[in-house]
Amino acid sequence: MRISELSAASGVAIPTIKYYLREGLLPAGEQTSATRARYGEDHLRRLRLIRALLEVGRLPIASIRRVIEAVDDKTLSLHHVLGTAQYAIAPPVEPDASGQDWAEACARADALIEELGWRIDPAAPTRQELAQVILTLVRLGMPADGEALLPYASTALNLVTEHEMRVIPVDGPREAAVEALVLGTVLHGRVLDIMRRLAHESVSARIFADTRTDTSDDTSDGTGPPG
Amino acid sequence: MRISELSAASGVAIPTIKYYLREGLLPAGEQTSATRARYGEDHLRRLRLIRALLEVGRLPIASIRRVIEAVDDKTLSLHHVLGTAQYAIAPPVEPDASGQDWAEACARADALIEELGWRIDPAAPTRQELAQVILTLVRLGMPADGEALLPYASTALNLVTEHEMRVIPVDGPREAAVEALVLGTVLHGRVLDIMRRLAHESVSARIFADTRTDTSDDTSDGTGPPG
Repeated sequence: MRISELSAASGVAIPTIKYYLREGLLPAGEQTSATRARYGEDHLRRLRLIRALLEVGRLPIASIRRVIEAVDDKTLSLHHVLGTAQYAIAPPVEPDASGQDWAEACARADALIEELGWRIDPAAPTRQELAQVILTLVRLGMPADGEALLPYASTALNLVTEHEMRVIPVDGPREAAVEALVLGTVLHGRVLDIMRRLAHESVSARIFADTRTDTSDDTSDGTGPPG
Repeated sequence: MRISELSAASGVAIPTIKYYLREGLLPAGEQTSATRARYGEDHLRRLRLIRALLEVGRLPIASIRRVIEAVDDKTLSLHHVLGTAQYAIAPPVEPDASGQDWAEACARADALIEELGWRIDPAAPTRQELAQVILTLVRLGMPADGEALLPYASTALNLVTEHEMRVIPVDGPREAAVEALVLGTVLHGRVLDIMRRLAHESVSARIFADTRTDTSDDTSDGTGPPG
């Protein structure tokens, strides 16, 4: 297809496509004349991935380039490619790494991962994210031991093995797998967070909706002053 | 205790405590002389709650005041008070409410909640959050039907009923329940998101770490050029 058709099929404007071509994010089309090139399904798939990284992953162009390079490097395993994308879209950690507290929180995070027996790269930024939230819990006097945190680990592992990894298309082009991972990580993460807060409301409604801390008449219309 | 002791016990600076007193977020202490007042456990608990709403919930003072007013209004059920806090800390939705798409996404969100049989206020902002993410999924060509989203609902409901609602202290002062809800919603939400991404990495390592899309020798040291 021509660039105009690629634009129509992808929903990406022609000047933006030309920008991606100049930046090397999109490989050149097959030159059919001095001023024309032909594009194919690969280009369309690549544009979908760029759009997912940009609009949903909210990545800057430099980070998108690193993900694309990993997708293109056929010596890398799919695990490595998915990891590159996942680390790129992770929220930046600004560790309050000024003291002993931070070192202890890091040790706790590592110990928790060890206890779970999960295979996590020693340099994974996700370890620092976990240490940061453990540090915040400790500072606010909330429990941050295994008993408090392991229910979240088992909930997440169950969701990932029973559902999420099954919907990643691993047998097709790598672009499709990376796109599914990025969209799934961000958007389904949002879905899970929303469902959790909806569940809080629903469960709270069943348990507490009719409890009041005073002894006022529950049949009052609630418009009167308290007490 | 005196204001200096309240400051030491709470970790909140004296000028900040005075600011909360002026703003009415913290009730006045018991006046013991023209220039001195005595403070108690209630003040300490209130300061903890303000700090949680401010530092973890990231609420502006006006929103904190609304939550505090609900805590103080003894005619409101605990469910109502928890809901006020939960809605206040929810991320703002900026719905792309320009067309038919948005109306359809809202209808889908409502239908999903109806199908779940959850008790959710018709005006809950969480409904709009759900509609917004459904709209994004649809626009990106991802499944957004019950089959795709119900696993997140059942995962969340299980976590909330089996674990989260059990750690809310509902028999003590309302401040403590609201503080636990706010800290739990934000910080445990972050824990769940991090655990989910760690689980992705671990499961991906087990499944894909040794797969490559070309047929290169797996025993190579990986430093050579591809192909």
